[in-house]
Amino acid sequence: MAVPIPEVVILRLPLYFRVLTLLQDETEIVSSQELGARLQITPAQIRKDLSYFGKFGIQGKGYNVNQLLGELRQILGLDRKWSVVLVGVGRLGRAILDYSTLGPHGFHITAAFDTDPRQIGKKVGQLIVQDIAVLSDAVKNQDLNIGIVAVPPSEAQEVIDRLVSCGIKAILNYAPAAPVVRSDVRVYNIDPVVALQTLTYHLKCLSTP
Amino acid sequence: MAVPIPEVVILRLPLYFRVLTLLQDETEIVSSQELGARLQITPAQIRKDLSYFGKFGIQGKGYNVNQLLGELRQILGLDRKWSVVLVGVGRLGRAILDYSTLGPHGFHITAAFDTDPRQIGKKVGQLIVQDIAVLSDAVKNQDLNIGIVAVPPSEAQEVIDRLVSCGIKAILNYAPAAPVVRSDVRVYNIDPVVALQTLTYHLKCLSTP
Repeated sequence: MAVPIPEVVILRLPLYFRVLTLLQDETEIVSSQELGARLQITPAQIRKDLSYFGKFGIQGKGYNVNQLLGELRQILGLDRKWSVVLVGVGRLGRAILDYSTLGPHGFHITAAFDTDPRQIGKKVGQLIVQDIAVLSDAVKNQDLNIGIVAVPPSEAQEVIDRLVSCGIKAILNYAPAAPVVRSDVRVYNIDPVVALQTLTYHLKCLSTP
Repeated sequence: MAVPIPEVVILRLPLYFRVLTLLQDETEIVSSQELGARLQITPAQIRKDLSYFGKFGIQGKGYNVNQLLGELRQILGLDRKWSVVLVGVGRLGRAILDYSTLGPHGFHITAAFDTDPRQIGKKVGQLIVQDIAVLSDAVKNQDLNIGIVAVPPSEAQEVIDRLVSCGIKAILNYAPAAPVVRSDVRVYNIDPVVALQTLTYHLKCLSTP
C-alpha cells in the first residue's frame, strides 16, 4: 500500500470487524455514529481510519455492513486460516489453548512447545507438548505462521529469538517483558500490568479535580 | 490537566515506565534514542509523548532515569496500592490469580467472584470465591478500585454493568466482547483474537509485494 497506515489505526480495525460481525444479522447499513457509540470511538475517527483503505461509505447513510466486513477481512488477512504455535504450556498457556474463540476466527494452535522437560511428551488438549529444540522442523513442516509465547519473563527473549530464527514473523507475547526483535517481525504484547497502569491513570484523573 | 492527553499516549506511558525500571540499575541518564531502540518507538514520538507532562529532558543528553520514573509513577497513579476484584475463576481467572507480577506492581486481587454456584465457596489461592450477588458489599467494605473480568463473553456485559453499578470505574476485560459503559468508566479489553488480527495484517503486508 502506498500510504503507511499508522499502527494505532491497524489496532482499531479488528474492533470494527468484531462490531460489524455482531451487526451483520441486524442491519444492512450502519452509520459511523452507530459504530462509534458501540466502540466509544468518535465517528470522525472511524471515518478517518477507514478512509486510509478507500471509499467505503455511502454519503449521508453510512457503511454497507457486508461490504465493509468483506473489505476488512481482506485488509486484515482474515480470508484464510492461520496456523499458530504455542510456546509455554503452564496455567496461562493451557488457558490460551482452551480459548474457544480462536478457532472460529481462523486461528488454529497446531503445535505446542515447552522448555520444561516435565511438560515435554504430555498431552494438552489435542496436542503433544514438544521439546523446543525441535521447533525449527515443526515450523517448516506445519507451515506455522504465528507464535504465542506464554513462558516466564526470564525466558521470553530467548524463546522469541528462537521463533524468529525459525521464520516466525508475528508473535503474541504474554510474558511481562519488553522483547526486542528485527524490524520485519511484529510482537504484540499482552500484559495485564501495562493495562492496569493505564487504568490507574484514568482513576487518578477522576480523583484529581 | 489542561491539555487532554491522547489515549494512545497514555497507552505508551506504562511501556516507558517498564523500560526505565529495567534501566535504573544500569544508567543514570537515558536518551530518547536508547528508549526508542528498546521499545521500537521513534525517539521523536517519545519526546512528544513526554512533553505532554512537562519538560523532563536534559537538552542534548536525555532523561534522568530516576526522575522520569518518579514523574511517571505519579502521572500513572502508581505511588499507591490498588485493590482489585476478579470476576470469573475458570482456567483464565485462575491463571490471572497466578500472575506473579501483579503484586510487585501494586495490584492486589483481594476478592474473587463467580456466577457459577459450583465455584462459590471454593478456595482459589488465598481467596474464597464469593457469590456475585454480594459484590456491592465487598466493593464498599474492601475499597476495591479495579475489576478484572474473566467470564464467558455472554456474561461480560452483565458483569461489567454490575461492577459499574457498585462504583468500579476501571475494568480490565478478558471476555471477547465489546462491552458498552458510561463515559466516566474505562474498560481495557484484552482479547487475543483482536491481537492476532493485527498480526495477520502485518503478515499480509509482508507477503504482498
